[in-house]
Amino acid sequence: MKVSVKTPATIANLGPGFDSFGLALPLYNIVSVEETVLPGSGIEINIINEKNNEENNIADVPTDKNNIVYKAIELLHNFIGQSPNELKITIKTQIPISRGLGSSASVIVGGLIAANELLGRPADEKVLMSIATEIEGHPDNITPAFVGGMTMASWEEDGSIFYRKLPWHDDWKLMVCIPDYELNTEISRSVLPKEVALKDAVFNLKRSAMFIDALYNQDDELLKLALKDKLHQPYREKLVPGLSDIIKNLKHTNGVLGAVLCGAGPSVLVIYNGVGASEIKETVTETWNYFNVKSTFLNLPIEKQGAQIL
Amino acid sequence: MKVSVKTPATIANLGPGFDSFGLALPLYNIVSVEETVLPGSGIEINIINEKNNEENNIADVPTDKNNIVYKAIELLHNFIGQSPNELKITIKTQIPISRGLGSSASVIVGGLIAANELLGRPADEKVLMSIATEIEGHPDNITPAFVGGMTMASWEEDGSIFYRKLPWHDDWKLMVCIPDYELNTEISRSVLPKEVALKDAVFNLKRSAMFIDALYNQDDELLKLALKDKLHQPYREKLVPGLSDIIKNLKHTNGVLGAVLCGAGPSVLVIYNGVGASEIKETVTETWNYFNVKSTFLNLPIEKQGAQIL
Repeated sequence: MKVSVKTPATIANLGPGFDSFGLALPLYNIVSVEETVLPGSGIEINIINEKNNEENNIADVPTDKNNIVYKAIELLHNFIGQSPNELKITIKTQIPISRGLGSSASVIVGGLIAANELLGRPADEKVLMSIATEIEGHPDNITPAFVGGMTMASWEEDGSIFYRKLPWHDDWKLMVCIPDYELNTEISRSVLPKEVALKDAVFNLKRSAMFIDALYNQDDELLKLALKDKLHQPYREKLVPGLSDIIKNLKHTNGVLGAVLCGAGPSVLVIYNGVGASEIKETVTETWNYFNVKSTFLNLPIEKQGAQIL
Repeated sequence: MKVSVKTPATIANLGPGFDSFGLALPLYNIVSVEETVLPGSGIEINIINEKNNEENNIADVPTDKNNIVYKAIELLHNFIGQSPNELKITIKTQIPISRGLGSSASVIVGGLIAANELLGRPADEKVLMSIATEIEGHPDNITPAFVGGMTMASWEEDGSIFYRKLPWHDDWKLMVCIPDYELNTEISRSVLPKEVALKDAVFNLKRSAMFIDALYNQDDELLKLALKDKLHQPYREKLVPGLSDIIKNLKHTNGVLGAVLCGAGPSVLVIYNGVGASEIKETVTETWNYFNVKSTFLNLPIEKQGAQIL
């Protein structure tokens, strides 16, 4: 028996909501899990690069028991007091790797849902989310990968994941600006300080409150005020040269509501109201050109649906 | 000509929303401002303690040009390029002083609105809020004192005050627990660190997002999760002995949604759903008794209306 699950790309943080906010994109990885008889280690992992994403560097992704999909599936088996049998895992990737678009969350979630299905669904969504978060380290990408749309999530002290799906205005469009280099999430975490100024903490708590209010009221002006951050983006600037320039240069571009780092970077998300797409691309291209960074663009709506069994 | 303004008490912070969230209470100070001919310094300030609040210590409140109401009125005059004429200011206080209930914000706002009326309304709400915040130091009490209800507010870099009025569930009642001692706001600010752990900053930004979501969805369970703080309450525990015990002891009390410090303290606000008032009082009384602190209680709804000219 073989189960395939299609899971969306996701963008975490979204400015003020470090480690909390996230949204899903209509761009997918498909993970297939099959119990089968295999020679050797009893595990076979194949990663297939979809043609529209030729630059994606999948050579470095482990295809043994260090693979995160395998690790997640192993944790699920442990949860029910078992160990995985011989498994064949196939990952078809459409989501760029190490660009801040949730590729790892996508395959973890896909693999877990597929394996859970194969096992006869011993775990509910709550358990699967906890396991996925344990592998990923934070729930901000995991949650929208599971349920789609715009979410806020918190890894509570008891290990459970609390989340809420939030409203997203249909007029708010997404321009994902992807630079031509990868940025490892761990490196991008390592530049964050352990301590921050209290006033910066207050800055972000205000902005994240404004963000939620803007969502419920579909309030463009409030969203503009909200899409600011002092807790992670300033520290990641050195790994994402041009970030603050892009934010500044887009500030007065017609239709732009804000620009934020996608997760740990290096991609940048521009939220805009549907007009001025070419101006946005031009501004980002020119700004990154100055730093010798080439860019590609994805002009997308939000993906309202989460992971689906195919 | 004499103008009198009635302004509500307010509670700031409300757990996660340090320096941002606030709500108004149906408890008022009345500030009357009169232009008149006076001997000496040209200023007369009378503070009248309303009878229901006999313990209120008004002896230390300055009645000269150091009085905050006078200072606020002076700033308003400066804004229009003038200096105040001879002024008689009368303050009738119902709001306990230095208990975390916004008594200073109340009289600043009342004095400013009264003086602005006497001057023929040269300043709009935006300007008055900025002046009031400049005197008070932060907008979290000023805003609900002005507009009533539940608010979030931010002092933006250009000096302006951004605020939004937020929905408040009619079923959410307020039990204000007032201990028998005063706590100076400046002292209560002085115990806060300049730097905090990034994870505590993230904790609060999540909780403040949850708080706003709980308001829009009238969600009791989410409000319970949201009413937590790691940015100011833990540091103020030494100035408000019993605070964490009260929070802990009320955690499983039927009907209680959460307990938080009122502003800079020392009062504690218990938000509850209307049942269990006597159990709340009992728990708080017993807990504070252990620390030799006596307490009084105000069982109130939210005040939806802000400052009014009488």
